Amino acid sequence: MAAKAPLVISDKDEMRKWSRSVRSQGKTIALVPTMGYLHQGHLSLVSEAHEHADVVALSIYVNPGQFSPTEDLSTYPSDFDGDIRKLMDVPGGVDVVFHPHNLYDYGVSSKNCETEEEGNGAVSCIEQRGLGHETWVRVEKLEKGLCGKSRPIFFRGVATIVTKLFNIMEPDVAFFGKKDYQQWRIIQRMVRDLDFSIKVIGSDIIRDKDGLAMSSRNVHLSPEEREKALSINRSLSSAKSAAENGEVHCEKLKSLVTQAIREADGRVDYAEIVDQESLEAVECIKGPVVFCVAAWFGKVRLIDNIEINL
Amino acid sequence: MAAKAPLVISDKDEMRKWSRSVRSQGKTIALVPTMGYLHQGHLSLVSEAHEHADVVALSIYVNPGQFSPTEDLSTYPSDFDGDIRKLMDVPGGVDVVFHPHNLYDYGVSSKNCETEEEGNGAVSCIEQRGLGHETWVRVEKLEKGLCGKSRPIFFRGVATIVTKLFNIMEPDVAFFGKKDYQQWRIIQRMVRDLDFSIKVIGSDIIRDKDGLAMSSRNVHLSPEEREKALSINRSLSSAKSAAENGEVHCEKLKSLVTQAIREADGRVDYAEIVDQESLEAVECIKGPVVFCVAAWFGKVRLIDNIEINL
Repeated sequence: MAAKAPLVISDKDEMRKWSRSVRSQGKTIALVPTMGYLHQGHLSLVSEAHEHADVVALSIYVNPGQFSPTEDLSTYPSDFDGDIRKLMDVPGGVDVVFHPHNLYDYGVSSKNCETEEEGNGAVSCIEQRGLGHETWVRVEKLEKGLCGKSRPIFFRGVATIVTKLFNIMEPDVAFFGKKDYQQWRIIQRMVRDLDFSIKVIGSDIIRDKDGLAMSSRNVHLSPEEREKALSINRSLSSAKSAAENGEVHCEKLKSLVTQAIREADGRVDYAEIVDQESLEAVECIKGPVVFCVAAWFGKVRLIDNIEINL
Repeated sequence: MAAKAPLVISDKDEMRKWSRSVRSQGKTIALVPTMGYLHQGHLSLVSEAHEHADVVALSIYVNPGQFSPTEDLSTYPSDFDGDIRKLMDVPGGVDVVFHPHNLYDYGVSSKNCETEEEGNGAVSCIEQRGLGHETWVRVEKLEKGLCGKSRPIFFRGVATIVTKLFNIMEPDVAFFGKKDYQQWRIIQRMVRDLDFSIKVIGSDIIRDKDGLAMSSRNVHLSPEEREKALSINRSLSSAKSAAENGEVHCEKLKSLVTQAIREADGRVDYAEIVDQESLEAVECIKGPVVFCVAAWFGKVRLIDNIEINL
């Protein structure tokens, strides 16, 4: 039985007004921030959100601030009507969908609209468009490793858009998938360091039946690539078993995974075993770690991870 | 007739609770953020705040995040009891004073507590103390010039602490003195870019009878240094008159000011004529500009500015 259609709001002032009106009724608000093209991973966040708040808000916004000009912003998949239908099939649905057009357009032309090189020589699609936005939130240590190495402005963009969404939507609790493990830890740290009054909850990875971690980008995989990409999850599971059976040397565990991915024609971006909190690489597993992987199959970059709690 | 003593809150959760309780009564909140050692400049912000909101909150916190380890954090003047007395003499007083002990102590020891060099090789007293705080807000263009050149982490620290105070105190309107012109513009831009629902108001510089812009740091000037420091305001006023009388070439106006300050034994950090919005240097005055100066007299660094609206 489908839930009723959610209210769809695109204007940020109207969105804030909605949140404040809900809050003034003494109700708590959960936020599930997404870039749309929803899959079961997102929908499970919605279900979990219902357990933690009186109303559930979901945002759909493909954030140009986290894409570099050479990345896949223009081909990022979208299906707004399909997303709404899927949300209506979740028990309880969602109360509101925030679907802004452009969160970086402040209605003024910038005097400094040329692309300007930043410290590390990288800019996002925002600077490239010259809309005058120039304020960025950085979680300076956690953003450096793992995905931060090959995507130097990615987490700057994520932390900034999440700050904007928090300020517009004013939730009490926000949900992030642990597939994006580094992102989840960065948002947690940001919320602590900037004193947001928001609880951040990380939810377990949702996988397809074949074991592939759900991602909106999976749609770009050919059937063969998809089959090969299963090497990521399979090798991570093997590594976890090996660790549980006494193999605690990370070099050995990492080569197990990188070899399996390469044998499946994948191009490994990184395969790192890191502390679950600090995300710093460990040489030998002594406590809770997470094994994080990013790899390319064809033109698609996939990430996945597995927690190992010895 | 003295106002009643303000409520003093040091705990951030208690502070937020107070703000939310006030808001739930339908009242609006003005915030005057300060580092204490209040002078007439601060008190005029309080008076102005009463005109814009139902209740007035003032914060007193010397923010280590905006001082580099070589700057004057340890000698920054303070007089909490005197501050409270002064606030009680302002008509209406203030409703609450937020006076936290340490806004960077999250009650956890950091695993990464060594001082770590950042892009430009500069760190604040926060990294030096190793409390694990690592999230910073940067207004990347506006923070670069003027004071940003000699104080590379200053505005990062200001934007970050103001974000924290905004998130803890949740005001509707916030007041900043225009003596710190660049700071005011940076906070305005940050509020726009991060979608804070807060109105930022810049208030005119308050000067002593002799013309010196009020600053908590003035207390460190000897009587002779203070007399010499008047060269800043006097030369800025002369430059403004000259501009109004047709001298629009900035090189000439700037040398007028730098010469006057040097003749008074001052050491000029910068003397720049910049666009009021973008803070970019102009060669020739064609529209609204602000003439900004920073100069050392003895061990005291003073800043001042004057708007020129041709």
